Amino acid sequence: MSPLPYKTALIVGAGPGISASLARALSTAGLGVGLAARNPDKLKGLAADIGARTFAADAADPSSVAELFQAVDTQLGEPDLVIFNPSQRVPGPLAELDPDQVRSALLTTAFGGFLVAQQAAQRMIPKGSGAILFTGATASLKGFARSAAFAMGKFGLRGLAQSTARELGPKGIHVVHLVVDGAVRSATRADPADKPDSTLDPDAIATTCMAVLSQPRSAWSFEVEVRPWVETF
Amino acid sequence: MSPLPYKTALIVGAGPGISASLARALSTAGLGVGLAARNPDKLKGLAADIGARTFAADAADPSSVAELFQAVDTQLGEPDLVIFNPSQRVPGPLAELDPDQVRSALLTTAFGGFLVAQQAAQRMIPKGSGAILFTGATASLKGFARSAAFAMGKFGLRGLAQSTARELGPKGIHVVHLVVDGAVRSATRADPADKPDSTLDPDAIATTCMAVLSQPRSAWSFEVEVRPWVETF
Amino acid sequence: MSPLPYKTALIVGAGPGISASLARALSTAGLGVGLAARNPDKLKGLAADIGARTFAADAADPSSVAELFQAVDTQLGEPDLVIFNPSQRVPGPLAELDPDQVRSALLTTAFGGFLVAQQAAQRMIPKGSGAILFTGATASLKGFARSAAFAMGKFGLRGLAQSTARELGPKGIHVVHLVVDGAVRSATRADPADKPDSTLDPDAIATTCMAVLSQPRSAWSFEVEVRPWVETF
Amino acid sequence: MSPLPYKTALIVGAGPGISASLARALSTAGLGVGLAARNPDKLKGLAADIGARTFAADAADPSSVAELFQAVDTQLGEPDLVIFNPSQRVPGPLAELDPDQVRSALLTTAFGGFLVAQQAAQRMIPKGSGAILFTGATASLKGFARSAAFAMGKFGLRGLAQSTARELGPKGIHVVHLVVDGAVRSATRADPADKPDSTLDPDAIATTCMAVLSQPRSAWSFEVEVRPWVETF
Repeated sequence: MSPLPYKTALIVGAGPGISASLARALSTAGLGVGLAARNPDKLKGLAADIGARTFAADAADPSSVAELFQAVDTQLGEPDLVIFNPSQRVPGPLAELDPDQVRSALLTTAFGGFLVAQQAAQRMIPKGSGAILFTGATASLKGFARSAAFAMGKFGLRGLAQSTARELGPKGIHVVHLVVDGAVRSATRADPADKPDSTLDPDAIATTCMAVLSQPRSAWSFEVEVRPWVETF
Repeated sequence: MSPLPYKTALIVGAGPGISASLARALSTAGLGVGLAARNPDKLKGLAADIGARTFAADAADPSSVAELFQAVDTQLGEPDLVIFNPSQRVPGPLAELDPDQVRSALLTTAFGGFLVAQQAAQRMIPKGSGAILFTGATASLKGFARSAAFAMGKFGLRGLAQSTARELGPKGIHVVHLVVDGAVRSATRADPADKPDSTLDPDAIATTCMAVLSQPRSAWSFEVEVRPWVETF
Repeated sequence: MSPLPYKTALIVGAGPGISASLARALSTAGLGVGLAARNPDKLKGLAADIGARTFAADAADPSSVAELFQAVDTQLGEPDLVIFNPSQRVPGPLAELDPDQVRSALLTTAFGGFLVAQQAAQRMIPKGSGAILFTGATASLKGFARSAAFAMGKFGLRGLAQSTARELGPKGIHVVHLVVDGAVRSATRADPADKPDSTLDPDAIATTCMAVLSQPRSAWSFEVEVRPWVETF
Repeated sequence: MSPLPYKTALIVGAGPGISASLARALSTAGLGVGLAARNPDKLKGLAADIGARTFAADAADPSSVAELFQAVDTQLGEPDLVIFNPSQRVPGPLAELDPDQVRSALLTTAFGGFLVAQQAAQRMIPKGSGAILFTGATASLKGFARSAAFAMGKFGLRGLAQSTARELGPKGIHVVHLVVDGAVRSATRADPADKPDSTLDPDAIATTCMAVLSQPRSAWSFEVEVRPWVETF
């Protein structure tokens, strides 16, 4: 695997799972890392571990996202690798969902992706290089019952990612849509004893992302799927 | 083709194209028809022609959609066939789009679909029957360059439609996602002389919709595509 | 629904299910109908009922398919609607399948489709009209475990159908790929008492096919799916 | 990237492009490599370079494939990584294709994949580990006009690969379907001067394959796509 051709990574919607593993991998690879979340206090431990900076931002708010990128420009340098991770679920029967929660979920999950991709594009297009990675889910490809809000948001994000890839790829910007098809291992969710490796190890996902982000432009992957060996699909 | 098993149709986002042809076909088939749009004045001619009622509603506003359905309940009876048609495009380079316009487009195109489907579901679930049809586009399946907002909205609507179909199908409600893959013929867009039938005749689309909506529940179609014979796909 | 714009239908791989319903519907619509199968004896009852002619043919054998079309040309006239229906399953664990059976299944299910489509194309292209319908299955879209042979054959047939549609559509020939997503009702397979309409009524499928085949060329459907209301998908 | 957890690789359908790059990468990673082709003479240079053994085999012939695996077992040890690469195109108008060539192409491209996967599965299932990689193309996902034979074969191979992945994944065997979406750089096909990196560098594809094959089973990719940055998709 080649070293990543990027210097400064910004992870929007950073948290404890995939994004934390990616942050560690990117830092180890020598990139400067910025971590953004609505409440960045929860990121302090990770940031201290890897020497990252944290930023407060609301991914669904145009001004907040614009200010985030300006702050990153100033404090870390213009990001040439941007990862969009936030999502919201509003599970439940369609007829009973709260419309305000559904709108909020859609704006965070899909519109936030647009806002972040737009700021990234404005910085990357003049340089003719950079990478944008969107985090998808099983729900990006299949809309399940009692999951209307999440399906709408994740399908929407995939549509955005495809459009962004087709527009920015020929401008030298590598756009990736990561489909995480399964449950991610975490402090509160481990593998059942009789089903080893049945949850996705976030470090393994990060390793795959690093390999994809190091691809030369003659052979880019756009959509990348990862799932446990025992996952039904 | 069997007669439609529905009595009252509500078309949200009614306009001059597919929705007008559908309104005529539904009226001819004996259904009571309600036509809703932000500005219902433009619907007066059609409504007069077919004896339909018109309603003012903003598909992206939860209160407005709830009030629309209440008005239809009172004036026409609870709709057992609901068609969601609105969409907004914001074409242009990703880096230059106006975020407020993009948000508005997403809310109209996808969130509006949720609001309408929810109101429909609340009325149809107790009866164990009904139908909901969502209007999609080429952009529902493929996100094109310089079309981020439309791709995001139409993918989102498809995710919603899939989730709705999987949840409401087994409750007896026929959910249809119509993929209109091509340009629709209109007063301002006719076939080029050397390419007959290269635009979609909205009456032909309506005929296909009527056939699908008359399917018995043992053999429903969910996703239905229509495209001109010479369309590249 | 408009009347079908075709005069002579040939159903290759005719049997008791969907193809019998289609044969009846086509005959009722006034078309001359030819029924072909390896063993046409089983078709005698149906043929007598609807005044169809029967033909013996092996769909996987180039000479046999060529002779079939010549016989139909002579006895019924050149077919302008051709339906390809044969398929073979070889269920079981991948490691245990008999290669000769798998090859035979692939040749019948996919290569047979090519042979039939080619003969149809040779007759339809000069006229600039006609229709070809391929019968697919759930396995056309999803390759299941212990179903390697059927997945290979049905995926292959779908690839052929797509290629045929893209090539022959602009020549005026309507190509349809029907995805039958569920079990078809039959003399030996009825709905469970507690799950009414949970199998596909072949007459209902035929009605949908007739509607699709009557579409004007400005708004053709290529891929058409049908599934019972309670089917998981 | 972790080292590959495999010792002995067999590449069926080895040639000068992707498979040669893969062979070099696998050899560098320490695996024993077997190269099989109908005419293994063309593999002599590569085999000498990397210390690989060559084998003559016809991928579409059950006996030949069985003998190939027995020879590899004896000479190299049971392969725990098997790559299926052969394909045949028969380009041209559907109506003019030679049926014998089309059958041959289908058998090589799809049935050959079955034969190879079956032999691989028989060896890997008892060990509960191993990997099988199938080489796909743009035509695996989209059937183009004048490409009926290739679409049929590559769709068929994808159906087989999906079935194999769903069946063998939970048995510990990593199945990968590589979609090569673009032209591969070669001695006779270089990038146009004004379009650098517009063909796929086979070494870059091999690097991506090595990364995927080194994934731990908690986060496997099944379908992997690679395309040049300027490729239309």
